[in-house]
Amino acid sequence: MSVLIVGSVALDHVKTPAEEKENLLGGSASYASVAASFFYPVNFVGIVGTDFPVEHRQFLASRLINLEGLQVVEGKTFRWSGEYLDNMNYRETLSVELNVFQNFTPTLPPSYRSSPYVLLGNIAPTLQRHVLDQIDSPRFVIADTMNLWIETSRKELLELLKCVNMLILNESEARLLTGSANLITAGRLIRALGPQFVIINKGEHGSLLFGENAFFSCPAYPLEEIRDPTGAGDSFAGGLIGYLASIIAEKSDAITFDQLRSAVVYGTLLASFNVESFSIERLRVLTHTDIEKRYHLFRLISS
Amino acid sequence: MSVLIVGSVALDHVKTPAEEKENLLGGSASYASVAASFFYPVNFVGIVGTDFPVEHRQFLASRLINLEGLQVVEGKTFRWSGEYLDNMNYRETLSVELNVFQNFTPTLPPSYRSSPYVLLGNIAPTLQRHVLDQIDSPRFVIADTMNLWIETSRKELLELLKCVNMLILNESEARLLTGSANLITAGRLIRALGPQFVIINKGEHGSLLFGENAFFSCPAYPLEEIRDPTGAGDSFAGGLIGYLASIIAEKSDAITFDQLRSAVVYGTLLASFNVESFSIERLRVLTHTDIEKRYHLFRLISS
Repeated sequence: MSVLIVGSVALDHVKTPAEEKENLLGGSASYASVAASFFYPVNFVGIVGTDFPVEHRQFLASRLINLEGLQVVEGKTFRWSGEYLDNMNYRETLSVELNVFQNFTPTLPPSYRSSPYVLLGNIAPTLQRHVLDQIDSPRFVIADTMNLWIETSRKELLELLKCVNMLILNESEARLLTGSANLITAGRLIRALGPQFVIINKGEHGSLLFGENAFFSCPAYPLEEIRDPTGAGDSFAGGLIGYLASIIAEKSDAITFDQLRSAVVYGTLLASFNVESFSIERLRVLTHTDIEKRYHLFRLISS
Repeated sequence: MSVLIVGSVALDHVKTPAEEKENLLGGSASYASVAASFFYPVNFVGIVGTDFPVEHRQFLASRLINLEGLQVVEGKTFRWSGEYLDNMNYRETLSVELNVFQNFTPTLPPSYRSSPYVLLGNIAPTLQRHVLDQIDSPRFVIADTMNLWIETSRKELLELLKCVNMLILNESEARLLTGSANLITAGRLIRALGPQFVIINKGEHGSLLFGENAFFSCPAYPLEEIRDPTGAGDSFAGGLIGYLASIIAEKSDAITFDQLRSAVVYGTLLASFNVESFSIERLRVLTHTDIEKRYHLFRLISS
């Protein structure tokens, strides 16, 4: 049993007010898979070029991450460069080189098709759908998205939403998708589009989980020093689906709101560790003891 | 035993994207006192002109609010006019007529001087200090403030902060006062200025309570329809101090962080009711049963 995670794999160049680093392991699939792998085995789906550093591949393979679905093709790996301004809440993309990612057609290895849990990371809705269509009988499917797809592929995104259990998006994306300035209304409207559950991520203000007649407001973990916010949303989603997979009985009927609530808290914790360092550096040395310690602190400050 | 509350009393003209209303009972002392009076008797301190409608006075007097400290002087009552734009999170002040408020010197009736709990609503720090100096031995003092005083009376505000137990301010005020974009850092820095406790109010994103080695992130109560956000911060502060006064033993040594945590939740609830209608209209018909019902819902969604 595994969590299937599809998304981008990138080499990032990140600038913050204090620091600047290049050739970092990045991309939604990388962050989400590393976070999920703390809790459950991952079937990784992505694409890189022949320039992809062997140490990145080795690191991913050293965790509970199956790389059979990582395509390596002639050419250069997707590259992203961005800068954080002011209080790290504002990000400017400086450059994007899609490279091999441009022709990404995620075809799943046969062994992946039975993955019960699926995280459709932030890629084009048609690709997300293409992945989902190859899975035999998914038990819980989470999709992430972004403003680009809401603006350019709304029809395809709306089609996809009918086939997923949960959509995760941020505040501005929720407003863009629904036209509602009120986030509580936005959550309700998105549920009406298909997903049984919706999460609106608010960064430093935490996240909102919407279900049927159920709602959970999860605070952010308080951090004074954020070194690099890149991948916060992806490690949140990865931590969430990995933890969820780890706590639900294989054959039980339905996933409960209480299970999702706990999963949101673990997602929040993984994201909080992730932003303490560049790339996946903090997650690289993170232990289960660290996670449990922070979980207990989190319960103290939030309930 | 009473909570002393000082602040402005105003006649408001409020415009929202959907509605517009005039001659509303407003001002920080009005909102805070009505909210506090659900839990504890209030000693009210404010000033109005001879034009102040008798029904507003009668309404305040009909609650647990002592109006001995409400000065009525020849002239017009303070008038404020504002408009809410977009998602109600942005407010523009259209006009301010200080009128009799301009020469407000809050002199306390002798019976007020033994008030153990004090809420220094949002007025000039020198006036807040003047009120505090007239109180014999205050047990817990909360001050509210705003960007105007941080910019124009920083020295006086910093003096005041050495004499209060708690400061309540919003996100942008916390950033302005400390120069820190990170709210966790801002809370820590404000505590270093004097107040043992600090609350940073984030509107729809809830509030943060800081104490010594203690922190509480309180979510906002989820509301789809906000009719008029005016007075949200004041009803929060009033509900908080009224509830706090009601639960602490008269002679106990110290106010605990857990007591403050509960008080923050009740402040949040009072604010959530307040914004459901213009002026104090929702609070006018609010019952203890309504509050307790919402309290139980709130516990479900936040912990």
